[in-house]
Amino acid sequence: MTPRDLTLNLPETVEEIRGLFERYEKALEDKDVDVLDDTFWRSPHTIRYALHENGYGFDEIHKHRVGRPAGPGIKERRLRLEILTLGRDFATVNLEFKVRGQDMVGRQSQTWVRFPDEGWKVVAAHVSTVNAEPLW
Amino acid sequence: MTPRDLTLNLPETVEEIRGLFERYEKALEDKDVDVLDDTFWRSPHTIRYALHENGYGFDEIHKHRVGRPAGPGIKERRLRLEILTLGRDFATVNLEFKVRGQDMVGRQSQTWVRFPDEGWKVVAAHVSTVNAEPLW
Repeated sequence: MTPRDLTLNLPETVEEIRGLFERYEKALEDKDVDVLDDTFWRSPHTIRYALHENGYGFDEIHKHRVGRPAGPGIKERRLRLEILTLGRDFATVNLEFKVRGQDMVGRQSQTWVRFPDEGWKVVAAHVSTVNAEPLW
Repeated sequence: MTPRDLTLNLPETVEEIRGLFERYEKALEDKDVDVLDDTFWRSPHTIRYALHENGYGFDEIHKHRVGRPAGPGIKERRLRLEILTLGRDFATVNLEFKVRGQDMVGRQSQTWVRFPDEGWKVVAAHVSTVNAEPLW
């Protein structure tokens, strides 16, 4: 078996992911559904847990995109952005942000895989806010 | 460059991940910190967005484990468990669940990577509840 290259944060790979992430963030504000769709893996296995709904499979996620309003969205300010790449085919992006107009902290997580044909795609994503009230 | 094998959901790989996931879930209930620690990548790059806090790096995540109460936790019932493996080295686990004693839906996401020496580890995780109130 060929040893896998899981080299941490190769600069060119990090920059690839950073560019794709920023493109996605802009598309969220612009409600550019083509770019949003293009960012996610076109598969029934893709999952996007969003603030108000859970999307299973590309088609359901696409429907949620279409139903969403355009505009600046809930991110008022970035608090911390962490990009992790392992080798040239795998990455995670995690963003902590202040929620617009509210005293709440949000979190956005993405898991990226570079496919041989399609290139980098998000296969799983999760957006949420920190629970203010203890649940246990 | 060797073509990457991203074969979807090889049964033996799915079962590996399922076993590791169930081991982790049991460790959460038992507050078995050794198993919880062993599940996550021992790296400053590991991230765990939990219900009430954001953990950056293995050490911070470990501290959150130690401060957490033992017990059945917030998962009353599983609603949907999705395991995705791509090839033999990469996986995501996404669980949707009913929150114990409350009319709320929770979501748990994990990103797993198989490292040459350490084996399968979670490099990023995110647990949250669906926002009942629209934030925008």
